[in-house]
Amino acid sequence: MHLVTFLHEGRATVGIADQALTQVSPLPRDVAPDMIALIANFDSLKGTLTASAGAPLPIASVELLAPIPRPARNVFCVGKNYHEHAKEFAGSGFDSSAKEVVPEAPVIFTKPSSTVIGSGKSIPNYLDPTDSTDYEGELTVVIGLGGRGIKKQDALAHVFGYTIINDVTARTLQHKHRQWFIGKGIDGFCPMGPAILTADEMPDPTKMRLTTSVNGERRQDASVTDLIFDIPTLIETLSAGITLEPGDLIATGTPAGVGLGFTPPRFLKKGDVVTIEVSGIGKLENPVG
Amino acid sequence: MHLVTFLHEGRATVGIADQALTQVSPLPRDVAPDMIALIANFDSLKGTLTASAGAPLPIASVELLAPIPRPARNVFCVGKNYHEHAKEFAGSGFDSSAKEVVPEAPVIFTKPSSTVIGSGKSIPNYLDPTDSTDYEGELTVVIGLGGRGIKKQDALAHVFGYTIINDVTARTLQHKHRQWFIGKGIDGFCPMGPAILTADEMPDPTKMRLTTSVNGERRQDASVTDLIFDIPTLIETLSAGITLEPGDLIATGTPAGVGLGFTPPRFLKKGDVVTIEVSGIGKLENPVG
Repeated sequence: MHLVTFLHEGRATVGIADQALTQVSPLPRDVAPDMIALIANFDSLKGTLTASAGAPLPIASVELLAPIPRPARNVFCVGKNYHEHAKEFAGSGFDSSAKEVVPEAPVIFTKPSSTVIGSGKSIPNYLDPTDSTDYEGELTVVIGLGGRGIKKQDALAHVFGYTIINDVTARTLQHKHRQWFIGKGIDGFCPMGPAILTADEMPDPTKMRLTTSVNGERRQDASVTDLIFDIPTLIETLSAGITLEPGDLIATGTPAGVGLGFTPPRFLKKGDVVTIEVSGIGKLENPVG
Repeated sequence: MHLVTFLHEGRATVGIADQALTQVSPLPRDVAPDMIALIANFDSLKGTLTASAGAPLPIASVELLAPIPRPARNVFCVGKNYHEHAKEFAGSGFDSSAKEVVPEAPVIFTKPSSTVIGSGKSIPNYLDPTDSTDYEGELTVVIGLGGRGIKKQDALAHVFGYTIINDVTARTLQHKHRQWFIGKGIDGFCPMGPAILTADEMPDPTKMRLTTSVNGERRQDASVTDLIFDIPTLIETLSAGITLEPGDLIATGTPAGVGLGFTPPRFLKKGDVVTIEVSGIGKLENPVG
């Protein structure tokens, strides 16, 4: 099932979309007041969800929002989690963390809830005074069943589904402030969407492939099998001390091909269009500026 | 004015306390459904707030919660923001950020909303498998009027008040995961309180002094004048790209005297009691274990 959040009758509304994301059927507000509430109650709702949905509307006629427009706490993000990207990042001179290429343990930071924007919205690169705004296409886990101390072998049972984020980063600020939060926390620097693909339709997430294009030119192309720390390991690591909650988001890291990997770096500029596609989920596309 | 959140008739309730924090007058729920709502509407409420409060109760008879028990997004925190602490941290071998002693720009990271506990609650050091749990007493700014692009000279007008947090840290995890989030994000690792002192009673925050004791032994003792990046600079830096919101919390960094500054390090153990006091705000005291 593909779930989206969109503007309907002037309010953020959860809906069920078809696989091609051409139409969306709104869910009644008493069933799904918002995506996080739907996720929290999904087990009891899923049997009757499709029957409760309204008449389908063309997606082209509505305004899509991020599937979770305002996460209840910051988005969990993983750094340097693909081998080739870890190499390009280490070689760029922008890495302010330890100098080993492959980290010994997952590198976790956050993006504030206020960074989230939907597919189609503009990435405000003008808020980066250092003019070093870069894209990072990332497969993102949406937590369903929360918990602490989740073991790897049980981890996928805690996944509600998958979406895409663009972990937009002001590289110069990422480096200058040492910890990455300032460079990654700017308003609008977390495009998310277009939909959440529920986990029942993707029992093996390593089968997914992620591609990123800028103005139609392919920049990132990787299989989720290439993750240094796989999804079960990330869930085990985070939940060791942090109780995960329904609707939590874990962006799993970006593969090689970001702008700073080029010589000279190819940062985003006004008018660019970034398109991130993950097989089965859909296409997250945002103009810049 | 000292504002607190406490359990009253089974629910989290906002109240006005006296300066000595001996009694608290509950505010009606329609006036102050929670502290964040009160902060957001404070300008229109403040004139009648005291008159609307109920009969005072002895604080010793109620259960205090953190003033903001569940922030709307992660707590903003500043690392290495006192000269002497920056030195002790650099010398400890636990610093996984760049190796300069004094950072060229504020080092910002976050603690998830789920880390917050009130004064008197136990710090769950048993969730740190590396047995390296450390205290960090910190003066914390509570944002009142939100905004982006706030300049230093206007910054204090955006401060609602001040509270205290203990930025509890699992040092080995802080180092191992490079970015500091995992070591600082563990459930219960952000004691906060006991109260918010409104800014009108502290027009010059550099006048405050912070002390931390463990089992009555003084460990930290510093003036807020010793901050490397002062409060206006922190607000300017954060708000340059991030729209600040009412109820946002900025922990301003910890002075010298944390457990890892000793040789060998003196980490917290079950049964210890950590007491952090800031002049004018009160005393945040939490047992360990």
